[in-house]
Amino acid sequence: MAYDLGRSIGWLKTLLSTASADELRARLAPKPGGPIRRVPGRDDLDDDAVEARWALFPGAAAPARAALLDDDAASRQAYRRNIEHFVGTVKVPVGIAGPLRVNGLHAQGDYYVPLATTEAALVASYSRGALTITEAGGCAAAVLNTGVSRAPGFAFHTIAESGHFVGWVMSNVATLKAVADATTRHGQLADVQCTIEGSSVYVAFEFTTGDAAGQNMVTLATAAICQHILAHSPVTPRYHFLEANMSGDKKASHQSFLHVRGRKVTAEVLVPGALVASRLHTTPEGFERYWRMGAMGGVLSGTIGVQGHFANCLAALYIACGQDAACVAESAVGTTRFEARDGDLYGAVTLPNVIVGTVGGGTMLPSQRACLDWLGLAGAGHANALAEVAGAIALAGELSITAALIAGHFAQAHEALARGTAPLPAARA
Amino acid sequence: MAYDLGRSIGWLKTLLSTASADELRARLAPKPGGPIRRVPGRDDLDDDAVEARWALFPGAAAPARAALLDDDAASRQAYRRNIEHFVGTVKVPVGIAGPLRVNGLHAQGDYYVPLATTEAALVASYSRGALTITEAGGCAAAVLNTGVSRAPGFAFHTIAESGHFVGWVMSNVATLKAVADATTRHGQLADVQCTIEGSSVYVAFEFTTGDAAGQNMVTLATAAICQHILAHSPVTPRYHFLEANMSGDKKASHQSFLHVRGRKVTAEVLVPGALVASRLHTTPEGFERYWRMGAMGGVLSGTIGVQGHFANCLAALYIACGQDAACVAESAVGTTRFEARDGDLYGAVTLPNVIVGTVGGGTMLPSQRACLDWLGLAGAGHANALAEVAGAIALAGELSITAALIAGHFAQAHEALARGTAPLPAARA
Amino acid sequence: MAYDLGRSIGWLKTLLSTASADELRARLAPKPGGPIRRVPGRDDLDDDAVEARWALFPGAAAPARAALLDDDAASRQAYRRNIEHFVGTVKVPVGIAGPLRVNGLHAQGDYYVPLATTEAALVASYSRGALTITEAGGCAAAVLNTGVSRAPGFAFHTIAESGHFVGWVMSNVATLKAVADATTRHGQLADVQCTIEGSSVYVAFEFTTGDAAGQNMVTLATAAICQHILAHSPVTPRYHFLEANMSGDKKASHQSFLHVRGRKVTAEVLVPGALVASRLHTTPEGFERYWRMGAMGGVLSGTIGVQGHFANCLAALYIACGQDAACVAESAVGTTRFEARDGDLYGAVTLPNVIVGTVGGGTMLPSQRACLDWLGLAGAGHANALAEVAGAIALAGELSITAALIAGHFAQAHEALARGTAPLPAARA
Amino acid sequence: MAYDLGRSIGWLKTLLSTASADELRARLAPKPGGPIRRVPGRDDLDDDAVEARWALFPGAAAPARAALLDDDAASRQAYRRNIEHFVGTVKVPVGIAGPLRVNGLHAQGDYYVPLATTEAALVASYSRGALTITEAGGCAAAVLNTGVSRAPGFAFHTIAESGHFVGWVMSNVATLKAVADATTRHGQLADVQCTIEGSSVYVAFEFTTGDAAGQNMVTLATAAICQHILAHSPVTPRYHFLEANMSGDKKASHQSFLHVRGRKVTAEVLVPGALVASRLHTTPEGFERYWRMGAMGGVLSGTIGVQGHFANCLAALYIACGQDAACVAESAVGTTRFEARDGDLYGAVTLPNVIVGTVGGGTMLPSQRACLDWLGLAGAGHANALAEVAGAIALAGELSITAALIAGHFAQAHEALARGTAPLPAARA
Repeated sequence: MAYDLGRSIGWLKTLLSTASADELRARLAPKPGGPIRRVPGRDDLDDDAVEARWALFPGAAAPARAALLDDDAASRQAYRRNIEHFVGTVKVPVGIAGPLRVNGLHAQGDYYVPLATTEAALVASYSRGALTITEAGGCAAAVLNTGVSRAPGFAFHTIAESGHFVGWVMSNVATLKAVADATTRHGQLADVQCTIEGSSVYVAFEFTTGDAAGQNMVTLATAAICQHILAHSPVTPRYHFLEANMSGDKKASHQSFLHVRGRKVTAEVLVPGALVASRLHTTPEGFERYWRMGAMGGVLSGTIGVQGHFANCLAALYIACGQDAACVAESAVGTTRFEARDGDLYGAVTLPNVIVGTVGGGTMLPSQRACLDWLGLAGAGHANALAEVAGAIALAGELSITAALIAGHFAQAHEALARGTAPLPAARA
Repeated sequence: MAYDLGRSIGWLKTLLSTASADELRARLAPKPGGPIRRVPGRDDLDDDAVEARWALFPGAAAPARAALLDDDAASRQAYRRNIEHFVGTVKVPVGIAGPLRVNGLHAQGDYYVPLATTEAALVASYSRGALTITEAGGCAAAVLNTGVSRAPGFAFHTIAESGHFVGWVMSNVATLKAVADATTRHGQLADVQCTIEGSSVYVAFEFTTGDAAGQNMVTLATAAICQHILAHSPVTPRYHFLEANMSGDKKASHQSFLHVRGRKVTAEVLVPGALVASRLHTTPEGFERYWRMGAMGGVLSGTIGVQGHFANCLAALYIACGQDAACVAESAVGTTRFEARDGDLYGAVTLPNVIVGTVGGGTMLPSQRACLDWLGLAGAGHANALAEVAGAIALAGELSITAALIAGHFAQAHEALARGTAPLPAARA
Repeated sequence: MAYDLGRSIGWLKTLLSTASADELRARLAPKPGGPIRRVPGRDDLDDDAVEARWALFPGAAAPARAALLDDDAASRQAYRRNIEHFVGTVKVPVGIAGPLRVNGLHAQGDYYVPLATTEAALVASYSRGALTITEAGGCAAAVLNTGVSRAPGFAFHTIAESGHFVGWVMSNVATLKAVADATTRHGQLADVQCTIEGSSVYVAFEFTTGDAAGQNMVTLATAAICQHILAHSPVTPRYHFLEANMSGDKKASHQSFLHVRGRKVTAEVLVPGALVASRLHTTPEGFERYWRMGAMGGVLSGTIGVQGHFANCLAALYIACGQDAACVAESAVGTTRFEARDGDLYGAVTLPNVIVGTVGGGTMLPSQRACLDWLGLAGAGHANALAEVAGAIALAGELSITAALIAGHFAQAHEALARGTAPLPAARA
Repeated sequence: MAYDLGRSIGWLKTLLSTASADELRARLAPKPGGPIRRVPGRDDLDDDAVEARWALFPGAAAPARAALLDDDAASRQAYRRNIEHFVGTVKVPVGIAGPLRVNGLHAQGDYYVPLATTEAALVASYSRGALTITEAGGCAAAVLNTGVSRAPGFAFHTIAESGHFVGWVMSNVATLKAVADATTRHGQLADVQCTIEGSSVYVAFEFTTGDAAGQNMVTLATAAICQHILAHSPVTPRYHFLEANMSGDKKASHQSFLHVRGRKVTAEVLVPGALVASRLHTTPEGFERYWRMGAMGGVLSGTIGVQGHFANCLAALYIACGQDAACVAESAVGTTRFEARDGDLYGAVTLPNVIVGTVGGGTMLPSQRACLDWLGLAGAGHANALAEVAGAIALAGELSITAALIAGHFAQAHEALARGTAPLPAARA
């Protein structure tokens, strides 16, 4: 009768056709005891340690070893501060999408954007969008805001204590800033937001992070702040946590969407009608129609923001350039807007949560560094430009996939490329 | 006076200290004309084509080439159907987290989970959680539902036409299923949901996808359905799109959270109090406190679901195992719950949107296949088990990071590992 | 420095200028002891009981009594089953908006819609929209779905028990339906949806409710189901609750927005361009522009759905017609869409959560019944028509307020009417 | 096969059993022409005008007239600035819930809260919660923030123009404040927030509103600001709207939930364990269990915040006290938290969007004023206290309904009261 029920019944039937209910219960039951073979030598990258880990491998290891463990002991030291329990490296193919002309506050010029992905048609689709932008004279791009937060939570007995605490924090922001800023040369405490929920207080400490993505930096700075608070606050929390799950770290949230997490970027392009026809095989009015229906589709499904597939380029760019790919969770929210203007097509994207850095994290690993070099954006001084490139490539992707959906080329592109047959790739989602 | 304003003013001042307003406007202006150097040879992986692309590289290419382009022309043919504009491969270090004892409907045994990441402490933290689970006898894990949708949109003139169309679709589901199922040997149309919004109709076609993640499969099957609809529907749409942004593809949405996208997995563990103390350095009551404050923190920030950092393991597992890392956007939603039960700790996670496959996509690339081999889950017949392992490792991570936050080890772990100094890693977020 | 901080500091300063911190703490402290004067005679509407309540009134009661307590003891018996601790009635002025021509599946004809409100310009604005619709030939309106849920929660020890329980529920839906349907002549169990979250199971029992709004009906039917479950389920819950906060009762939720709560209604109108000019003082293109910016505004602020001010007419209609005004919380979500079509204006609204009934609740109280009589929709057989009128009047309001915002009449309307001066009211929000 | 489909098919079958598809289409078709009888005499409350409106009434008007139109022409002049197209007043029965002891920053003492509702058991349930709070020594309550926004939208050609405009607004906040503050004696511009989305700028102007709810005040002040902007901005918008749907007016939004709309209030109580047993018939642990399951239920259904039924008391209080009942849409979001503390029960509610005033709106109408007099909160100087009472009564309701759900009295209370039979009412949702 019911939807989930109906599906679940089918599911249950399938299960029970292969195993009895008793067998299923037995499978789910705890299995205490038995040998536990721990992974040896956490941070050690020498041959012995790595060999000891491969000894855990189930079955014949030879082909897997060849594929994963192709660095020698010396070169793999490069990964020393980026991984534990190392057993090798996974190779993700990199294609370049471009040229992508960016007229940014920070990024200027024609970029070839390295995208690491295993999904057919993805690079081709972004490349088509990038070329369209470039032929239109490029896209404007601007970092509008920056900030990364940690949000400790403090539990008190009463609202009166909550209020007292917030009052004290408010009167001591300068001191807290000094405490935080002493922990890092690159970041600065830039804002403090207190949220009272009855006897609980959540405090978001927001930092600028220089050219780093900055999550570690803000964790350490906030830890120092918490130590200071515990030592000096006139009202003692019953307990507190360094992060009370309100910072938006590694998850999509309305709070980060409304404000900023990392860098907030917007990018826009005006594509002449003739170019819409020749390169994208459709019309500005087609884009307007799609936007109306697609924006409503996003609303109907309850997304945060409305956009098509920011996640595709962000994941591929983050992996290629040594960024934290888990941040796709928070970065892939934002807005896309298309409108017809006097026969031309205006398109804009806004991404409030781009988490990128050009120092720290995985940015100095050899192949990741090489990808940043393709962009000319490795090292200090380039994080804002990298964020603008992220916004620009997202705009390229929205152009290309939307055009494919309007022109009816969406499915063909997948079919042709994924099955290794035909020519013209249009889109990837 | 105002928050964003205050910050924006600071931002503007910084900008203007390096450039005048006119210069800023000039930077943002379109830059038409000039040479446009296109990327040559889209799918070609032979030396000539690859060389032609490297000729686009800005500046001295030698170190970048060495780092990215270390496959010979023969071996790089492996990537032929997974990338365009190939210039090399990025190497992401892989560590194994485990042993992780999973008592699943499909996954059974002690797994060593390959995680590809450049973030220090991540593998160590998951490994601690995995070991805790294993010492507790393992975690139960179950795939509860499966399904991947495409959601075309059809625009009509009136509600009467919308209703007429939906009535016709409802009466022809069996035919549409035959049309769809003919396009693939592995998937099946399993459900059809119509949403009327005035004169617009969005139809979600939901498919089982066998052991594939299935996004291409459902695209092609839905394209066939749309062709059939256009040929046979008694009421002709003004226009339609193969995807009207309501499927939840590549984005967090309440719809997918409420239902399923990919595979819906739940996992649970009961950790004895003594083990909570010895391995996690805290108490079940500490977890209960944290959960109350952290769940409210998630609610206050407006997340979809409440959880800590599913994204960390999902991104690392997806990259290692040749999955589509962009799907972290939709996969990293769900729920985590901890409660104290008679001196022990009960923990459960539920992830409704795990998008994994053991065939197709990047699963057969050499190093990705090697990672699946570490799990013993390469090839047909293993996708449900892989989803259960994904749920189980997510549970391990929630245990470990929560314990670190309660015990006050969160910041130390980051500091020690990221800076290459001290010993005991506890958590990563 | 920070926004909330800055504002909070101002707030604190204001507070402290009138009281010291110690005084503030004293104000917030518990005040145990002292006399507690309970309200006498819960359901009694006789003079003595009412007098005894008025004896609690602080200060001279005469003008308040005259205003509230103007029914005699006999006539106030009408309220006997609708209120406790009765002290009088509040009089809300009622204006009629119309004529509103509805071409509904159920509602047919020109309606004068009674709206109870104290907000100036509201009735005038809706009336303008209604007249526009009528002059355009009326609006189509259709009930698309119906259903009201209760969602008990059942706590088990393990996922295995959760699964066992869901399997048993699935196999016994027919029995549960018989149990539920025996409790009411008007409603029927129409759907059962199970959600597993680790060891917890939430079950949404969804009912048709005939011509009643139905919340009490579904509560009693679900209570009977729960009793049956507890007596017969092969797996006993650790504990359970008749409602586990997942039904969407009295709150906006994505679940109810995606599906239905009460009755799902859509309404549309095509307004000729000339009428847009003469009656609404703007153009179809103006509406399209507004919709693009306003839909994005809704998205940016994180609403559920996108619409302008459904709440205004729903609250006024619910109060006038004896509906549960608290349901405005869930009813005031949905979507509004405007587009220009060949020189005309197409507008549509969709409201998935209209909670109305024409029997039960407050529908038979004298003045509330009179308002239903204005609509010709009192008593059995009219609930679907009332829902369609609700959708139609919502469409009228969206037309009128949007036109006012486009034409720049929004503020003037408020100023003129609220201050009792000038003529042409255009809008109210 | 599918859920909505299955239900829709049933729906369609029912429809088609009473009418053919052609008849249904005919019903939905526009019906142009025919007489249109307009409502006469918009603001006129004299006998002639009212009579002329009653002449529109379909059928015999006598009983309806008696029920609605019982004021004489003189007394009904009281409604002159609050309604158009007046035809009478609807009488909503008022019960008092209390005594409710509030230890607020502004509200102090034992209140009898007038609630206007037609829903049986509602007043009784709130009264039980209020009495429990009072016996526990009362609840603390605090207004934490205040502010009401209007959010005009400005459309430009480019991001460069957007940025230029925001820079100018930022540099002219003091002037804009002077312009705004000149329009009202009671409100003040307190904050300005700019959101850039590509070439669009949304500006939220936030005001304090004194003792008024303030929506009209902020509309007029913002209109003055917009006039100033248009006259003086160095960059001219392509078009603008006084409200671009981003203020959260009359709708639940994450933005207002995260910040404030109206007044943000929190309230808390510590109920001794013995009182939980004697008055609420359960235990603090029972509340903790319910909270865990109910908070997760709210999360699973995708609500904004997590709470039980704030809407019930807010709607009833707003109607009784001449507030804008449509604001229930935005007011009924927030958080409820229960925890067991050393054998006692701690409960807290936080409502960020309480929209109340003690001057303006409907507050001076006779019966509405009488309700404010019951609270001792009519007129200037009392709006913050009224907001604290709103928070306190919401807390009372959460206590009572949660207790009823735990103790299993929820359904019984509805049954007994609604059917006019038995004694002890426990809860209402």
